[in-house]
Amino acid sequence: MVPSSQLQADAHSVAVTLNEIIAGYTGPATRLRDGMIYATSNGGKRMRAALVMGAARLASGSDKNPQGAQRTAAALEALHAYSLVHDDLPAMDDAQLRRGYPCTHIHFDEATAILVGDALQTMSFEILADPQTHSDAAVRIKLVATLAAASGLDGMAGGQMLDLEAEQGNFDLEAVKAMQAMKTGALIKAAALCGGIVGGGDEGLLAALDGFSRNLGLAFQIADDLLDYQGDEEVLGKPVGQDAARGKGSFVTLLGLDEARQAAVDLVTEADAQLAPWGDDAAYLKSLAAFAIARKS
Amino acid sequence: MVPSSQLQADAHSVAVTLNEIIAGYTGPATRLRDGMIYATSNGGKRMRAALVMGAARLASGSDKNPQGAQRTAAALEALHAYSLVHDDLPAMDDAQLRRGYPCTHIHFDEATAILVGDALQTMSFEILADPQTHSDAAVRIKLVATLAAASGLDGMAGGQMLDLEAEQGNFDLEAVKAMQAMKTGALIKAAALCGGIVGGGDEGLLAALDGFSRNLGLAFQIADDLLDYQGDEEVLGKPVGQDAARGKGSFVTLLGLDEARQAAVDLVTEADAQLAPWGDDAAYLKSLAAFAIARKS
Repeated sequence: MVPSSQLQADAHSVAVTLNEIIAGYTGPATRLRDGMIYATSNGGKRMRAALVMGAARLASGSDKNPQGAQRTAAALEALHAYSLVHDDLPAMDDAQLRRGYPCTHIHFDEATAILVGDALQTMSFEILADPQTHSDAAVRIKLVATLAAASGLDGMAGGQMLDLEAEQGNFDLEAVKAMQAMKTGALIKAAALCGGIVGGGDEGLLAALDGFSRNLGLAFQIADDLLDYQGDEEVLGKPVGQDAARGKGSFVTLLGLDEARQAAVDLVTEADAQLAPWGDDAAYLKSLAAFAIARKS
Repeated sequence: MVPSSQLQADAHSVAVTLNEIIAGYTGPATRLRDGMIYATSNGGKRMRAALVMGAARLASGSDKNPQGAQRTAAALEALHAYSLVHDDLPAMDDAQLRRGYPCTHIHFDEATAILVGDALQTMSFEILADPQTHSDAAVRIKLVATLAAASGLDGMAGGQMLDLEAEQGNFDLEAVKAMQAMKTGALIKAAALCGGIVGGGDEGLLAALDGFSRNLGLAFQIADDLLDYQGDEEVLGKPVGQDAARGKGSFVTLLGLDEARQAAVDLVTEADAQLAPWGDDAAYLKSLAAFAIARKS
């Protein structure tokens, strides 16, 4: 059920691509470059990269444009890494550890971390705009537009703003769902869609990937809440129970443990159903959905 | 010499466009939207917007695609505004005032200011990727690539990193020039180039705009250093003498007052020379160059 060799191969190829891209910058801002490498090297599960790669393979029927899919995955991972670096800042979540290592603002300093996040965001759009990602400008601009719509005021950044505000108020289930759909779900959806776009998928596949990834994104976040509630700090690489301690509304506090677990399972079932017409060709994406709620970190 | 009615008209039309675009986001993150409006409304000189508009008019021979030029200018101003919001943060320049008003992190709070900058950067790429900016995907992707290259590790963000490091070391004239070419010059150059691109300019014009804006960018920064040294705090809307107090190498401290003034004048002469083949059609852009060093704020 849990994807292993293919997930590892995808994670590895995207990490290599990311490193090559950052090493390709030859300007004098070496401290900033070092910070960008630090922030993207400890990449965790690379769930977004795997979604891009899996959706691109499903769309193209093979690895027709593996470099394009890898670069698109690298852009998604860079965007995700930027958001983690900024979310960890003292003024935001004030985190010390990320995946068992000191956060970028701890290992470097706060100013460097702000700039690392800023430059990683820029880089993600620069990667997508580059002809090496796809020869067709219309495909590249669709990638840029999809990632931008997922990341800004009505997407990830807006969701983080709502999440910070949630600490001061009582969010009900609908409000938590809406917030998480923006904060985490939008980028997970963009990963699946960008994979489909760079792989040349038709509108039917893109619609299915949309439905798949919406359900997956919510399941992923419920699993996150469950891990925050009952996870193993050593496996997670960060303290648990922080959300509850801050009084933040989460799926676990609002639904209870059992119902939250069941909701995650149901969402994965619904996600898989979206890809039913593609049969075994969608096995990898489905295994990612299963992995999203079975993971221990 | 100083452009007045056209500069004001351009500044106004771009401010209106920016506000309309931000108001077009209808999601629940209203605090973030308010912050983005705050950070972009007090727009100062709108030099980058004027460069876009002027270059677009020069390229197209008229206002063939005024909406496209205005949206491109709005994207440049949003990118510039993001950089100011982040530069002002406590961990960076720790500023209190920007153009006479409290900085975004003072008026709102630090977390909001970080997210305002993040979302403004995203928005600038989203604006450029939108078909409303230009019907041709190849033009739009060239705009995205140009802005991204100017803003990231080898551009504006890298320059800001070097500027922060400069406070700890002794930068000579070449190092200050290289740093400023990235920190300020890259975006000024991108403004002129993006204007030329959205206006449909040929390679000859884009090369001339490149040369023009490189010289203008350096002149602009020397003028900034002169204002920091001898400007009027009330007109500037921020304290003067801060760079010198921090021991930062600047054109004034490295060249002396008289030589710095002369260098700025020479650079504007060189900038204008690049546009000589376009005669009076380039009058507006030349007047912007003159304004860049004559300004009092």
